[in-house]
Amino acid sequence: MAEKWVYLFSEGNRDMRNLLGGKGAGLAEMTNAGLPVPPGFTVTTEACLAYFASGNKFPEGMWEQVQKSMKAVEEQTGKKFGDPKNPLLVSVRSGARASMPGMMDTVLNVGLNEETLKGLAALSNNERFAYDSYRRLIALYGRIVKHIDGAPFDEVLNKYKAQTEGGRDTDLTVDMLKDIVQEYKAIYKQQLGVDFPEDVWDQLGQAIEAVFASWFGERAVIYRRINKLPDDWGTGVNVQTMVFGNMGDDSGTGVAFTRNPNTGENKLYGEYLQNAQGEDVVAGIRTPVKIAELQQANPAIYNQFLDLAEMLEKHYRDMQDLEFTVERGKLYMLQTRNGKRTARAAIKIAVDMVNEGLITREEAVDRIEPAQVDAMLHPSFDPEAKQAAAERGDLIAKGLNASPGAATGMAVLDAKRAEAAAKAGNAVILVRPETSPDDVGGMLSSKGVLTQHGGATSHAAVVARGSNLPCVAGCEELDVDPEARQISVNGLVINEGDVISIDGTTGEVFVGAIPTIDVDFAREQDLATLLSWADEIRRLGVYTNADYPRDARRARAFGAEGIGLCRTEHMFFEPERRPFVVSMIMSKTDEERQKYLDKLLPFQREDFEGIFEAMDGLPVIIRLLDPPMHEFLPSRESLIEEVTRLRCTGENPEELAEKEKMLAVVEDMAEVNPMMGLRGCRVGLLHPGLTEMQTRAIFQAGCRQTKKGIDVHVEIMIPLVSHFNELRIQRETLEQVAKQVMQEEGVEIDYMFGTMIETPRGALTAQELAKYAQFFSFGTNDLTQMTFGFSRDDAEGKFLLKYVEDKILPSNPFQSLDQTGVGQLVAWAVENGRKTRPDIELGICGEHGGDPDSIDFFHRVGLKYVSCSPYRVPVARLAAAHAAIRNK
Amino acid sequence: MAEKWVYLFSEGNRDMRNLLGGKGAGLAEMTNAGLPVPPGFTVTTEACLAYFASGNKFPEGMWEQVQKSMKAVEEQTGKKFGDPKNPLLVSVRSGARASMPGMMDTVLNVGLNEETLKGLAALSNNERFAYDSYRRLIALYGRIVKHIDGAPFDEVLNKYKAQTEGGRDTDLTVDMLKDIVQEYKAIYKQQLGVDFPEDVWDQLGQAIEAVFASWFGERAVIYRRINKLPDDWGTGVNVQTMVFGNMGDDSGTGVAFTRNPNTGENKLYGEYLQNAQGEDVVAGIRTPVKIAELQQANPAIYNQFLDLAEMLEKHYRDMQDLEFTVERGKLYMLQTRNGKRTARAAIKIAVDMVNEGLITREEAVDRIEPAQVDAMLHPSFDPEAKQAAAERGDLIAKGLNASPGAATGMAVLDAKRAEAAAKAGNAVILVRPETSPDDVGGMLSSKGVLTQHGGATSHAAVVARGSNLPCVAGCEELDVDPEARQISVNGLVINEGDVISIDGTTGEVFVGAIPTIDVDFAREQDLATLLSWADEIRRLGVYTNADYPRDARRARAFGAEGIGLCRTEHMFFEPERRPFVVSMIMSKTDEERQKYLDKLLPFQREDFEGIFEAMDGLPVIIRLLDPPMHEFLPSRESLIEEVTRLRCTGENPEELAEKEKMLAVVEDMAEVNPMMGLRGCRVGLLHPGLTEMQTRAIFQAGCRQTKKGIDVHVEIMIPLVSHFNELRIQRETLEQVAKQVMQEEGVEIDYMFGTMIETPRGALTAQELAKYAQFFSFGTNDLTQMTFGFSRDDAEGKFLLKYVEDKILPSNPFQSLDQTGVGQLVAWAVENGRKTRPDIELGICGEHGGDPDSIDFFHRVGLKYVSCSPYRVPVARLAAAHAAIRNK
Repeated sequence: MAEKWVYLFSEGNRDMRNLLGGKGAGLAEMTNAGLPVPPGFTVTTEACLAYFASGNKFPEGMWEQVQKSMKAVEEQTGKKFGDPKNPLLVSVRSGARASMPGMMDTVLNVGLNEETLKGLAALSNNERFAYDSYRRLIALYGRIVKHIDGAPFDEVLNKYKAQTEGGRDTDLTVDMLKDIVQEYKAIYKQQLGVDFPEDVWDQLGQAIEAVFASWFGERAVIYRRINKLPDDWGTGVNVQTMVFGNMGDDSGTGVAFTRNPNTGENKLYGEYLQNAQGEDVVAGIRTPVKIAELQQANPAIYNQFLDLAEMLEKHYRDMQDLEFTVERGKLYMLQTRNGKRTARAAIKIAVDMVNEGLITREEAVDRIEPAQVDAMLHPSFDPEAKQAAAERGDLIAKGLNASPGAATGMAVLDAKRAEAAAKAGNAVILVRPETSPDDVGGMLSSKGVLTQHGGATSHAAVVARGSNLPCVAGCEELDVDPEARQISVNGLVINEGDVISIDGTTGEVFVGAIPTIDVDFAREQDLATLLSWADEIRRLGVYTNADYPRDARRARAFGAEGIGLCRTEHMFFEPERRPFVVSMIMSKTDEERQKYLDKLLPFQREDFEGIFEAMDGLPVIIRLLDPPMHEFLPSRESLIEEVTRLRCTGENPEELAEKEKMLAVVEDMAEVNPMMGLRGCRVGLLHPGLTEMQTRAIFQAGCRQTKKGIDVHVEIMIPLVSHFNELRIQRETLEQVAKQVMQEEGVEIDYMFGTMIETPRGALTAQELAKYAQFFSFGTNDLTQMTFGFSRDDAEGKFLLKYVEDKILPSNPFQSLDQTGVGQLVAWAVENGRKTRPDIELGICGEHGGDPDSIDFFHRVGLKYVSCSPYRVPVARLAAAHAAIRNK
Repeated sequence: MAEKWVYLFSEGNRDMRNLLGGKGAGLAEMTNAGLPVPPGFTVTTEACLAYFASGNKFPEGMWEQVQKSMKAVEEQTGKKFGDPKNPLLVSVRSGARASMPGMMDTVLNVGLNEETLKGLAALSNNERFAYDSYRRLIALYGRIVKHIDGAPFDEVLNKYKAQTEGGRDTDLTVDMLKDIVQEYKAIYKQQLGVDFPEDVWDQLGQAIEAVFASWFGERAVIYRRINKLPDDWGTGVNVQTMVFGNMGDDSGTGVAFTRNPNTGENKLYGEYLQNAQGEDVVAGIRTPVKIAELQQANPAIYNQFLDLAEMLEKHYRDMQDLEFTVERGKLYMLQTRNGKRTARAAIKIAVDMVNEGLITREEAVDRIEPAQVDAMLHPSFDPEAKQAAAERGDLIAKGLNASPGAATGMAVLDAKRAEAAAKAGNAVILVRPETSPDDVGGMLSSKGVLTQHGGATSHAAVVARGSNLPCVAGCEELDVDPEARQISVNGLVINEGDVISIDGTTGEVFVGAIPTIDVDFAREQDLATLLSWADEIRRLGVYTNADYPRDARRARAFGAEGIGLCRTEHMFFEPERRPFVVSMIMSKTDEERQKYLDKLLPFQREDFEGIFEAMDGLPVIIRLLDPPMHEFLPSRESLIEEVTRLRCTGENPEELAEKEKMLAVVEDMAEVNPMMGLRGCRVGLLHPGLTEMQTRAIFQAGCRQTKKGIDVHVEIMIPLVSHFNELRIQRETLEQVAKQVMQEEGVEIDYMFGTMIETPRGALTAQELAKYAQFFSFGTNDLTQMTFGFSRDDAEGKFLLKYVEDKILPSNPFQSLDQTGVGQLVAWAVENGRKTRPDIELGICGEHGGDPDSIDFFHRVGLKYVSCSPYRVPVARLAAAHAAIRNK
C-alpha cells in the first residue's frame, strides 16, 4: 500500500506541524476544535520531498489520495469539483514548518472554467463576482503556475479601471470583467501557445506542482538563507474550499492579531476589507480599515470572531495571527498561527502572560529571542533634533507605524539598486509604491523601508517587523515613481539618492538626516522584569568589554557584572598623548624610552581610576597593550607619497628630512603580517618598560581608589601568549612591580594575573599555561583568525561572505563561534587548564560573547562568564538563561 | 660523612663521564689501562653544581678531599706540593661531559712560588725552564683566575723578544726571563693591589674556583647555546701533575689523531712541537711540525706512542684525539677522547671500521650525524673558474687545509665587525692573525675563516670543523693587521670589505669571487655505502620538494623516492609568462580571464611533462597555486612612489595613467595580512578557472608522457584548507576536469586527490577532511605560523631569534618542529584522519622534513614519508635511519 501523502483537516492536529506544515496543522487543529473552517486537506511535506527526490514526479498514490480527499470535501460541502451546476472551488496554498510570509505561491479559485463559471454566476446570483473570480484565476494561474509575465494582465486591468469613475477594482462592470476575461485568455494563449486549461483536475494538479516548485523559488531560497532555515524541510500544500469575501457588501476579509503586534497591548488588533479577497489585504493594493470598525458594521460577526480569537489564544497559549473571511454574513476561519510581533510587543506579551497566569517565567524567558531584546535597544531619533527638523518643515509625510525604530539613509526606489547601494557602503532607505516578495533582498540590505500603499499587515510591514527593520507603510501622501526615480509629496520632489529619515515607531517621514540616540533602557520595565527572570535562571556570568568609564557605567546599567576586557591602547591614540607615544616608539635607548613612558603614566593612571570607580565592587580585567607599535605611527604608504612629493618639488627640505626619518622608522617596523608579528606580550618581553608602566598605573590607580573607599578587584591579562615562558617571564616582572607599588602606596588590593587564550598553541598548551595563569580569557576573535588562517580584515571583504552565501561555511565564524574547530580548542583548554589549576577562572571576551549560539556553547563548556559590548549585555543575559534552560 | 667530591684518576673509568667530565673519565680510563698518565685527580661536576647552588662556595668536605688526594699524588710522584726542594707542580683544567674546545679555563704550573721556583731550577738543572714556567704561571693566573688585562704581559714579553736575535720565546735568556718575572709580578701587584700569592694551596683553591666560574663564562655560555648543550651539567676540574715539554730539545708536546681527521685515512695524524708546552700548539702561536717528523727525530718515542694510539682506538672503538708530552725523553699521555673530524672523514672512518670488523653497520649509521652528511654536500669551487682565477694570478696564498669546503665573501678582520656585516646580509670571510674563543661568534656568522697563524689543531681549525665552516689556517704568507683593516701579501694589499675566496679543502686563498658548484654526490662512494645501510634500516620514505625537472633529477640522484611538494607558482614568475599572468589577474570578466589562462596552459603542461619524465615511476605530489595573486603584481609601495613622482613631474601622462590603473588594482587587492588572506584553495574557489587550468595541464602532461612510456603517478594537492567543504568542492570540480582530460587523451593515469594540512582547523577536523582527501601532506611551515601566531617574515627578524637566545623558546620552531604544540596537532590529525580512512597516505612537506629531530618525531607519529629540499635528501635518509634505530 502506498504511503499516506494526504490528510483531511479532520485527520490532523497541531503536533503534526513537521508533516503538515504550520498552516495545515493550524487548520486541522481549528477544524477539530469545531471552529468554522472551510473544509479541505493537506498534501504533506514528505510528499513534497518525495516529489523532488523522484525528479519532480508526484509520489506513488498521492494523486489518487488527492482525488479521494476531494471527494470527502465534496461530501462536506455538498458541492462538486468541476460540476457546472454546483461547482466546488478551492485555494491551493503552501505551508512549511515555519511561516515564510509571502515567500511561496498560492493559487485561488481553482476549479473555475467556462462551464463552472456559469454555475458559479447562477448559484451566487452574481455574475460580476463570478467573472471577477475567473479573471483572478487566469492571472494567478498564468503567473504562478506557468511563470508568464504578469505585466500585460495589469495593463489590461488598469486600462478598464481608467474607464470607470472611481478607478477601483470594485468599480468595474460585469461587461468590463467579461472583456477582461477574454483579453486575459488571449494573453495566456499568446504567451503559452495553448488555451487556459478547462480541465479542473488539470488545474489542481498543476497548482499543487507549482506550490511544490516554489519551495526552491529564488525568494524562498533567499529567505531561508537569511533566516537560517534548512532546505530539506519541504512545504505542505493546503487545498481548501474557497470562501469569498468579494460577494458583496455583506462579505469581506480580514487579518487580525489577538494582541497588538507593535506594542503588545492585550487588545484585538487587525484590519478588515469589505467585499474583497484576502490577497487584496496582504498585497496592500487597497488600504483596509481597522478591525474595530467591523464592530460597528457587523457586531454579531465581530463578537463571534472575538470569542474565537480568545479561545485560540488560550488554546495555543500565545498571541495568534488570524485570517478570516465573511461570505454573505457567515464567518470562516482560514488560518491561525503564533503571530509575529515587534520585540517590544513580544516582551510585553510574555510578561503579561506570566502575570495572567498563562505561562511560567521560564516559558516567558524561553519565548523571547535574543534578537528581539537586541531590537529593543535600537536607537531612536534624538527628540530635540527631530523637533527641530519638524519645525524646519522637514517632516514631509506620515504613514502607518508598521515596524518600530528610526533610520536615516539615502532614498532608493528599487530593490536591486538598494542592494547595490548598500553593498557600496551606503545607508539606504528603500522606498516603494508597495513591496512584493521580490523586494526582500533589497529590504534586508536597507536600514529602513517606506511604502506608499499597504497596511500594518502588508508584506512590507510583516517582513520589516520580522527583521527588526524600521518601516513606515501606507504613506499615501507620497507619489513614488520608481521609473523616474522620484518621490513627489505635496509639491516637493525627492530624488533617488537624497537623504531621508523615517520613524517606524511614529510613522513620520522626514527629508534630511536626523541623529539617533540610545534607548532609555531604565524605562523599559517589561524588559527589566524579563531579564531579572533570566538572571534567576542563568548560570553564566555576563561581563562587558569596556575601555572607558562611560562605557563601563552604561554596561553596568545594562546589568554587566564586571569588565571582561578593558583594552589599554585607546589612551595611546588620544591627541594629547600621541606625541609622547610617537617619541617613545622612536626612542633609540631604554633611557629615552623610559622618559616618555614616565610622561604617559599619569594619563593611564587616570583612565584606570575612572574605570575602577565605575565598577566599584566588581572585577575589572585589564589587557596590557596588544597592537603592534607601528599602528601608532603614520602609514607607510602616506609617508612614501609625501616623501616622494617633497623630494620632487624640493619645497620644504626640513619637512622632508623629518618625514624621511619617520619613514625610515616606519619601514624598519613594517610587517608583512602584523596580526602575527611584534605585538601582544612580545612587545612586553622586548621592551619591559612599557608593560611595567601600565602595571604601575593600574596598581597606583587601584591603591588610590581603594583609599577613597572604592572596592577594587583587578585582573591583569597578558595577551597573545603562545609559550608558557612568555607568560611566566612577564608575570614575574609585572607582579614585582605590582607588589612594589602596593608597598609604596601602603595598600593591598585584590588582584590576579592571567592570560588571553588566543593562539592555537596557547589553547593546546593550556595545561602548562595554567601553572602561571590564575585566569584564562578566551580571545575568540584572534583564535578564530589563526585557527582558520583567516585574516578577518581581508577575509570578510574578499571571500568569507561568499563562503557563507555559497554554504561553504555554515555561518560567519567571526559572528558565531565555529564549535567544531575553534570550539574544540576552547573545550580542550578548559579541560586541561583545570587539570593544572582546578579553580582557574575561565571566561571569554571575543565578539562571540554576545552571540546566542556561542553563549550556549560557552555554557556547555563550563565557563564562568561571557564578556561582550555594553549593548549586547541584555542580549547575553537572556541568551545565557536560554542556555541554562536548553541544557538542563 | 661528606659526599665524595674528588676522585683519583685510579678511582674512575670511562663510564663516569657525567660525574668526572670527558677529560677526567678519559684520564681515569687511561690510567687504569696502564698508560703513562701523570698522576692526578678530578673534582666532580657535582661539586661544581654544588658550588653554584651554595652561592659560590666549595661544598662541605670538598677541600679536605682535594688535600687528601694531593697527598696521594705526592706519594705517587715522590714530589711534594709547595716543597721548596722537590716541588710538585700541577695543571688545573676544566672538563665537562662534552668537549667544549677552548671554551673554559686552564691554569698550568700551579705550585710555583719564589721558593719552589728555586727547587724546580735545581731539580731540573734548568734555571731557564724554571723561570719560563714561573712567568707563564703568573700571566695565566693573573688572566684566568684574577681576570686582569693580559696585554701588559704580552707587551713585556714582546719587548724582550725583540731584543733577541731569533725573536722567539726560546731565544729568551735566563736573565731576560728573570726580569720578565719581576715585571710580571709588578704588573700583577699594580693591577690587583696585592702580591702574587706565595701560598701554593691558595693558588690551587683559587684556580679550581676559576675553572668552576668559567662554566658560566661568556664564551662557554655562547658555545653551549650554539651547540644546544644544557647549563646544568657543570664542569669537572682535573688537577694533574705537570709534565714539561719545554725542558729542552729532548722534550716536546704533541697532539695527534689516530686517523686523519680531514680525510679519514687510517694513518696517525698530528703535530709535534719540540721544547714547548701544550698551549703553544693549541694557541697556534708557534707552527708545529707534522708528527711524522717525530719518527725521524725520536723513533722509540714515536713507536711507543703509535702502539698506545692503536690500543686506545681499539679500546674506544673510535678514532681518538690524543694529547701527549715528552719530558726529557719520557712519554706522558695527557688526554684521549673521541676525535672531532670532518664530515668526509667521519663517514670514511665509519665505513672503514665496519669493513675492519670493528663496528656494525647500524653503529656506523648511528655514529654519523646528519649535519656531517650535510657538510659533505657543501659546494666547492667550480674547477674551471678556479683554474682561471689561478691563471689570472688571483691565487694569493696557500695555508693549511684546516676545514673543508669553499667560500667566497668580503674579508672582515674583526669578529664583532664580521657579525655586524653578516647581520647586514653580507657573505663574510673572517680573517684573523689567529682566533681565540672570543672570536667564536664572529666565526659562526661567517661563511669561512682564514688565519695567519696556527695549525690544523689550532682553535680556528677545531671550531671551523665542528661547525662545518671552510677554514684555511696557518697561512703565514699573509700579514693580517686588524687595526689597519688590511691584509698584506707579497706586496698586494687587501682592504677590509674586499672580496676573497678560500678553499678549505686545499688551503688556497684567492682575491675576488669564484663561483661554487655542487658536490659530485655520485663520486662519494663511502657516503653512498653508508646511506645504503641507512636505507636498510629506515622505515620513513624520503621524498623531495622540487619545482623544476632539474631539481627533481638532482634529488633523485640523492636518493629521493618521490616528489612530496611540487609548487606550481614558479611558472607564474617566469618572464615570458608574466604578462599573461598580470593580464589574467587584471581581467574583469571570467571570459577575459579564461583567455589568458588558455595561454598559460601549454607552459604549465610543459613544466609537468619534464617533472614526470624526471620522476618516471615515482609519485609526484603537485600543489595547486598557493600564494595570493597580488604577489605577481608590482608592490604597492613602488607604485605609490612612481605615481606620486609622475604626477609631480607631469612628464609622462601615458605612463602615469597606466601606473594609476595598476595601482588601483593593487590597492583593491592589498591585504593587511596576506598570509591569511585570499590565497590557497580560496583563490581556486573564487576563480575555478585557474585551478582547472592547472589540473588540465597536469593531466594532459601525465597522459601524454604515459603514451611515451613514462610511468606517471600524480597526486593533486589542494592547499590551505580549513573546512572540508573547500576541499570537497574543489576536488569535485577538478576531478571532473581530470576525468575529462583522460577521456580526451584516451589514457588513464594513476592519480589521487588530497590536501595539505596547514591550518590548525585543518588538523583539528582531519576526521572530516579525510572523507575527501586520499592523502594528507602536513605543511608544517604554515601550521607553525598559525599555531604560534608567528608570521615568519616578521617574527624571525623582530623577536624570534631573541626568544631562542633568551631561552623563551627551546629552539626556532621553523627549524625544528615544536612537538608540544604543532606536533600535537600533527599527531591528532594522523590519528583522526586514519579513523575515517585507514589507508590514508600521510607525509610532511614543510622545511621540518629535513630536520633530524623533526624526522624523529615524524617517524614516531607514523608518517609514510618526509619531503625536503634536494640537498637535504641524504641527510633525511640518515636521520630517518637514526629515528628507526632510536625508537626500536
